[in-house]
Amino acid sequence: MDLLLRNAKVFTPAGPVECDVAVKDGKVTKVAGDLQEQASKVIDLTGKYVFPGLVDGHTHMEFPFMGTVTADDFFHGTRAAVAGGVTTIVDFITPPKGSSLLEAYKTWRSNADPKVISDYGLHMIVREATPATLEEIPTLIGQGVVSFKLFMAYKGELMLTDGEIYRLTKKISENGGVVGVHAENGEVIDELVGEYLRQGKVEPVYHSYTRPEELEVEATNRVATIGSVLGKGVKMYIVHTSTGESVDVMSSYRRKGYKFFNETTPHYLVLNVDALRRPDGHRFVCSPPYRSDEQRTKLWHRLGSGEIFTVGSDHCVYSDQQKRRFKDTVPPFNEIPNGVPGTETILPILFHFGVRKGLISPETMVAVTSYNSARLYGLFPRKGTFSIGSDADFAVLDPNLTVKITPDVLHSNIDYTIYDGVTVTGWNVMTIRRGEVVFQEGQVIGSKGSGSYVPGSNPTV
Amino acid sequence: MDLLLRNAKVFTPAGPVECDVAVKDGKVTKVAGDLQEQASKVIDLTGKYVFPGLVDGHTHMEFPFMGTVTADDFFHGTRAAVAGGVTTIVDFITPPKGSSLLEAYKTWRSNADPKVISDYGLHMIVREATPATLEEIPTLIGQGVVSFKLFMAYKGELMLTDGEIYRLTKKISENGGVVGVHAENGEVIDELVGEYLRQGKVEPVYHSYTRPEELEVEATNRVATIGSVLGKGVKMYIVHTSTGESVDVMSSYRRKGYKFFNETTPHYLVLNVDALRRPDGHRFVCSPPYRSDEQRTKLWHRLGSGEIFTVGSDHCVYSDQQKRRFKDTVPPFNEIPNGVPGTETILPILFHFGVRKGLISPETMVAVTSYNSARLYGLFPRKGTFSIGSDADFAVLDPNLTVKITPDVLHSNIDYTIYDGVTVTGWNVMTIRRGEVVFQEGQVIGSKGSGSYVPGSNPTV
Amino acid sequence: MDLLLRNAKVFTPAGPVECDVAVKDGKVTKVAGDLQEQASKVIDLTGKYVFPGLVDGHTHMEFPFMGTVTADDFFHGTRAAVAGGVTTIVDFITPPKGSSLLEAYKTWRSNADPKVISDYGLHMIVREATPATLEEIPTLIGQGVVSFKLFMAYKGELMLTDGEIYRLTKKISENGGVVGVHAENGEVIDELVGEYLRQGKVEPVYHSYTRPEELEVEATNRVATIGSVLGKGVKMYIVHTSTGESVDVMSSYRRKGYKFFNETTPHYLVLNVDALRRPDGHRFVCSPPYRSDEQRTKLWHRLGSGEIFTVGSDHCVYSDQQKRRFKDTVPPFNEIPNGVPGTETILPILFHFGVRKGLISPETMVAVTSYNSARLYGLFPRKGTFSIGSDADFAVLDPNLTVKITPDVLHSNIDYTIYDGVTVTGWNVMTIRRGEVVFQEGQVIGSKGSGSYVPGSNPTV
Amino acid sequence: MDLLLRNAKVFTPAGPVECDVAVKDGKVTKVAGDLQEQASKVIDLTGKYVFPGLVDGHTHMEFPFMGTVTADDFFHGTRAAVAGGVTTIVDFITPPKGSSLLEAYKTWRSNADPKVISDYGLHMIVREATPATLEEIPTLIGQGVVSFKLFMAYKGELMLTDGEIYRLTKKISENGGVVGVHAENGEVIDELVGEYLRQGKVEPVYHSYTRPEELEVEATNRVATIGSVLGKGVKMYIVHTSTGESVDVMSSYRRKGYKFFNETTPHYLVLNVDALRRPDGHRFVCSPPYRSDEQRTKLWHRLGSGEIFTVGSDHCVYSDQQKRRFKDTVPPFNEIPNGVPGTETILPILFHFGVRKGLISPETMVAVTSYNSARLYGLFPRKGTFSIGSDADFAVLDPNLTVKITPDVLHSNIDYTIYDGVTVTGWNVMTIRRGEVVFQEGQVIGSKGSGSYVPGSNPTV
Ligand SMILES: [Zn+2]
Ligand SMILES: [Zn+2]
Ligand SMILES: [Zn+2]
Ligand SMILES: [Zn+2]
Ligand SMILES: [Zn+2]
Ligand SMILES: [Zn+2]
Ligand SMILES: [Zn+2]
Ligand SMILES: [Zn+2]
Repeated sequence: MDLLLRNAKVFTPAGPVECDVAVKDGKVTKVAGDLQEQASKVIDLTGKYVFPGLVDGHTHMEFPFMGTVTADDFFHGTRAAVAGGVTTIVDFITPPKGSSLLEAYKTWRSNADPKVISDYGLHMIVREATPATLEEIPTLIGQGVVSFKLFMAYKGELMLTDGEIYRLTKKISENGGVVGVHAENGEVIDELVGEYLRQGKVEPVYHSYTRPEELEVEATNRVATIGSVLGKGVKMYIVHTSTGESVDVMSSYRRKGYKFFNETTPHYLVLNVDALRRPDGHRFVCSPPYRSDEQRTKLWHRLGSGEIFTVGSDHCVYSDQQKRRFKDTVPPFNEIPNGVPGTETILPILFHFGVRKGLISPETMVAVTSYNSARLYGLFPRKGTFSIGSDADFAVLDPNLTVKITPDVLHSNIDYTIYDGVTVTGWNVMTIRRGEVVFQEGQVIGSKGSGSYVPGSNPTV
Repeated sequence: MDLLLRNAKVFTPAGPVECDVAVKDGKVTKVAGDLQEQASKVIDLTGKYVFPGLVDGHTHMEFPFMGTVTADDFFHGTRAAVAGGVTTIVDFITPPKGSSLLEAYKTWRSNADPKVISDYGLHMIVREATPATLEEIPTLIGQGVVSFKLFMAYKGELMLTDGEIYRLTKKISENGGVVGVHAENGEVIDELVGEYLRQGKVEPVYHSYTRPEELEVEATNRVATIGSVLGKGVKMYIVHTSTGESVDVMSSYRRKGYKFFNETTPHYLVLNVDALRRPDGHRFVCSPPYRSDEQRTKLWHRLGSGEIFTVGSDHCVYSDQQKRRFKDTVPPFNEIPNGVPGTETILPILFHFGVRKGLISPETMVAVTSYNSARLYGLFPRKGTFSIGSDADFAVLDPNLTVKITPDVLHSNIDYTIYDGVTVTGWNVMTIRRGEVVFQEGQVIGSKGSGSYVPGSNPTV
Repeated sequence: MDLLLRNAKVFTPAGPVECDVAVKDGKVTKVAGDLQEQASKVIDLTGKYVFPGLVDGHTHMEFPFMGTVTADDFFHGTRAAVAGGVTTIVDFITPPKGSSLLEAYKTWRSNADPKVISDYGLHMIVREATPATLEEIPTLIGQGVVSFKLFMAYKGELMLTDGEIYRLTKKISENGGVVGVHAENGEVIDELVGEYLRQGKVEPVYHSYTRPEELEVEATNRVATIGSVLGKGVKMYIVHTSTGESVDVMSSYRRKGYKFFNETTPHYLVLNVDALRRPDGHRFVCSPPYRSDEQRTKLWHRLGSGEIFTVGSDHCVYSDQQKRRFKDTVPPFNEIPNGVPGTETILPILFHFGVRKGLISPETMVAVTSYNSARLYGLFPRKGTFSIGSDADFAVLDPNLTVKITPDVLHSNIDYTIYDGVTVTGWNVMTIRRGEVVFQEGQVIGSKGSGSYVPGSNPTV
Repeated sequence: MDLLLRNAKVFTPAGPVECDVAVKDGKVTKVAGDLQEQASKVIDLTGKYVFPGLVDGHTHMEFPFMGTVTADDFFHGTRAAVAGGVTTIVDFITPPKGSSLLEAYKTWRSNADPKVISDYGLHMIVREATPATLEEIPTLIGQGVVSFKLFMAYKGELMLTDGEIYRLTKKISENGGVVGVHAENGEVIDELVGEYLRQGKVEPVYHSYTRPEELEVEATNRVATIGSVLGKGVKMYIVHTSTGESVDVMSSYRRKGYKFFNETTPHYLVLNVDALRRPDGHRFVCSPPYRSDEQRTKLWHRLGSGEIFTVGSDHCVYSDQQKRRFKDTVPPFNEIPNGVPGTETILPILFHFGVRKGLISPETMVAVTSYNSARLYGLFPRKGTFSIGSDADFAVLDPNLTVKITPDVLHSNIDYTIYDGVTVTGWNVMTIRRGEVVFQEGQVIGSKGSGSYVPGSNPTV
């Protein structure tokens, strides 16, 4: 036996288990109340909360967007991930326009493989629906890229027409893949952006005025309609949902037998639009924007009721300089690269603000951070579950450790955090990836490139 | 006094009035229980039901579309209209792509003025949102064209992007106009049409498979969202609504203080999709297609509850040859010109299937066929009401006259009807337009060109 | 001709009419743009707004309740009514428990006939469903009492079981009557009242804590379910609705073809729960209690959208002494007689806060204050409409007169008003009842007993 | 080790696990991919599906109701249970009116203890809300009776007023219990029953006419309102839900943070109202009645979407003679004892009609038949989970065994089944209760009285 975890209280979607856990060859091999066997390494986890290693289904490492590349490459990004208890990320391949998806896949693999500390899977962003693109989809699914992201916003960049979405969703579904959608009406957003800019309203907060909630709900409703026209074989989810109503749209389809879901992110659960009014508001610019406290409550309740399926981080990090586009003053809101860090803080944010406050159960937290993600992105049962034969991936949380969040305690390649000064109780103190301790005592000890690519298979939802 | 109507039972949106009516210079001047005055002409209406002359807010006379021009020009079309008790039509100006709206207005005026028997107003179809187009809108409103129709379907022909719809709706609303919308998702329809054609499914019934209900509801929800983003100053309606859910979308906005409405047409109330399966199914092709009987019931109930605001005919007539594109065999469904006749049968269809069957009250019938239409299209109070000073426009219905509908009893410039063989009780036997009898004893006696253009002013809804 | 109104701008549910109006024998006999005929009395109404005399469908004059009798008897109450432009009230017969409904009807007639200045109709409160009671219902309908009020609250006093409601609704509907319902869950209210009293929370504001919104919505849903089980022949309305959600329940049934409606009152439209926190909060105690500003907005929007069918006053007046039960200190909230004055201020409140602020159209105001009420209570077309042959009942409003509401300008038999100090623009300056001026220049000049009982016939909704 | 299960494929709410399982002292002690240890008994489960032993949260053994006692006493009933893979039942204590709950608890214990083969817990039916009753509730919870059933139907027998429900729910919630509700409007049902009987409509099918769907939805909405007035500390579920709309009511509350749930039963999922029209329709009489196929689909979809929380059997068995009240002819529907057998067929019905047809996942089946039930009734984690330290309760299903259901293959104390002739694939072939094989090869081998009472603690939902 390579590793023996003693006195582990492991939380699963079906309740906690108090047990000893044996690991061999990176897999969980035995679970018992008391394991007296020999092991190369024994860790006593008394007093800790053990969670299946998080599957962060939404990261953008080394992401080329809006004229720059995100500050966290696969090394820095997965360093932050494992520090936060994330043992698997699913990152977005972003092919240049007009290029081969398969080529982009290869590029991403060659970027990631030598750098990753966590394991990783890959989604594919699709920005056109040409015959060539459509033809590559089955091949990609064969390579383990089973989840495809389609954009209804970022007009002229990533935005697809409804016809293209229809065609791509059809092809993806016929080949057993899953469709992720950035749901905002980019056409109307563009009009609003133009109006605000013409009025000289350029501060970060106007970013939120140009992307009202209604446009997310509308786009969700639209793409769900498109999916439903294609039938019940379609598997679809809305990424980074920021409104309760968008969740309700998808729930109403599940209630009719469709496999339609929502992802949300921690920042929509704990931040509101006032973040954009701060002096450092430019750091907070992301899409969709933060909403009202009323919306936050709606999201928490829908998380608690099981109607939000996954929580990913949408980790998309830019340095303060990047956010300012290397100028002295903050540029107009529409020129600020969109994105915020997040993979390292999923666990403490959900635990402190959700579990401790009674808004969600630990079971739900486990479901949305690992079990559901792994199933939706085709990584289950290798990932996302505490089970015999599955990868021995664990986040070990000290439920009583109180930490004030500052850049110092975090591991991204930037010198700020959007949660600066926030104090939480419950902090990840050890991360085990395939039976190997890759993070402990505040130090990432997993080696660069030790992570593996995990090909997805057909989603099991 | 020019005309005295004796013993008239006039139905209004606020109940029936039994009275004598005096008309002078085309206007109602006096209403009383008993009028003993002298008049050039006296008509005794004992036993008849008198309705304000219908305002058919949806006709396409001399309409250039899909490579042909509708069979009813303004003469034949308004001949049919007055035969059906319609004293005012509101027709759609359809400017060629890239041309001036104002020029098109002038063309339509010069086409219509010498031919119309009924009075008429004009809507403007807008097929682009260029600066030039936007600039013409205030001028058009000054000319009495206050209602603008935007298309979310007919991709490549009439369909606008959401951004264009936003921009046009903004401009129209700022100038006090009203926005009418053909709400179907044309992007997805195009994909479906392609699929069906590729499978050789070309018969008329497949027209309905390519335009599922969901796509109407989605488009309604989308355009209502766009309108709501622009604020409560927007006045908007969905033309030819074929689903109860589309009505529910607009009702939910009215419930929040928006001025959002629905029009439906008689054919969605009485025909279902089986019409397209008939041997002469090609004659029935129109968009949206007919729905299920369940949908028909939903529409009737929403008409009864006051949630459908107007009933127009969408009179858009093609001869059987045109429908077949002058071939021996029926062409693929997507090549059949879209449209059916209807202006002459609004009244008997609504009266027989709605009022007589207890699904709607006569008050509601009056509201949706004249009062609401006149208000929505800015023609009130000159049109659409039985009131002192308003135009003396009347439809006189014999409530006990049973008629079997055949082409012979109708007046369009075609030799078929979509209601062939349908028997109704309640038939229009006389039409009075501005105090002049223009139809009686089955004969249209109003002279060609005697109708007037009625400029619209700001809608009063 | 007895009376000639010159230059009247009469508002109807179908728009305004500018005209002269001739009245003979209390009826409107002629309407014209210009009437040159002789009349005993001529009134020039230039600059005024003329409305059909209001039908206040909800008053409690001489009402024996909670151990006292309301301060406005039929004389004082109808004096206030006509001062406010109300020409017809529909008052509630409240039979003692165990007594004959018919006897109570006779008592109410003998109380009212010698005192009324306005005309009046009668509803019947039913407090039991014995065979004797059921048997009297057809007889009462024959006497013109066509509307029956059933209570779901006031346990032990007026509250009926669901079984009794079912049985009564069945009988009433079979005989063509209409069912009005006080919809609050009286069972739960009683529990809450007990809890608050036991905790010593006895101030007026706790009245509202014991009657949460949810209990109104629940009761509405329940009674609508009961009505729907009985079928589409049932005509039902919720009296004094205070929540938007109660309206939505009834709307959802109308959308399925049921004749289910809501009444609201002016005080729910303009007051919120803070009224109960005032030093004179006891004067404001009524049921249901006032709600939040959010609910007020919901009610205004539903009034604007046509989903609230009528506005009555629920005029139920107690002197300050009665409200205090003749004690020096305010009694516990549950001992304060429930009810507030209102009949005299319906018109200025709706006009100022609704029409002037653009929340409702004048047409809607007319519909909910006269046309719909008259139809629902079976008084149409004699009452509630400006039409040839109908009673010449008018409220004449000076749209520019600004009045600060104080007890001095009002006519109830009490020395306070719940709108004290509120300033409105638009005030009733003349009231005409069956062609007779009964109020002008601030003076009620109609004589005691000059009003008539108006028997109801089957509702025409 | 007492028992070793080899090659088990155990389904859990979080996916299947392929493993060996060690059992000692009735508990699961070790789970591993391969266990080479010694055991008193070894069972190879290759090719079988292993489920956590079912927790049937709804049975009525030895139930005194409608003048008789159910045919399955605790021996026969639990014999049927274990044959169906049910290792724990939760039965309903039904105290006589006016008697002590605690006494009734003792009676039930003394009835059950010597007879049960499965383990069992107890709910308490409460039929009054006297101070004495309320006072006993904390004591009962101390005895492990944490779930209380309240009736909104069976007027005069079990039905409570809304006030009583409020008071009981308050007391139960304050003491950490959970409230189960039979939700049908008993008042209206009684009226309908009277009407049908008076018309001579007495056949079993009229049972369904007197209990329309609307009355279940109404009662659900009412009791949810009552619960919500009491706050978010209330845990409540609707037993034997037969309509999708009742589920939607409770879901809408969960979406606001309430712990409100629904149970359904297999018979509402697979039977429709036609069952009552069969010659042996009297055997099928139960409340609520079966609904339409459309409702069945709604229930399946809500089961699939996770919105139905548990499936219990409502096992309540009467012999054919009892159903006929020992007469030659079938008595009027209202005299037929209500109830059908079910505990033995939960698993095959859900597996065949749900899992095999793709309507629900095996994970969902496990959740609703054991995990959720155990949590809701306070039996978790001892029961309802496959976990270290939990009771070694298992149902072993042969997924390929096709069985035609007849009385012969079942174990209830009656000679008929409501699924006679239905053929299913997937059948329970072995049941293990606390490590002991109590059913195999079609034989119940667990001994009478070998089951244990499992006291409930506070629900963990
Ligand atoms: Zn995105
Ligand atoms: Zn992203
Ligand atoms: Zn159209
Ligand atoms: Zn058209
Ligand atoms: Zn009341
Ligand atoms: Zn009242
Ligand atoms: Zn029950
Ligand atoms: Zn039961």
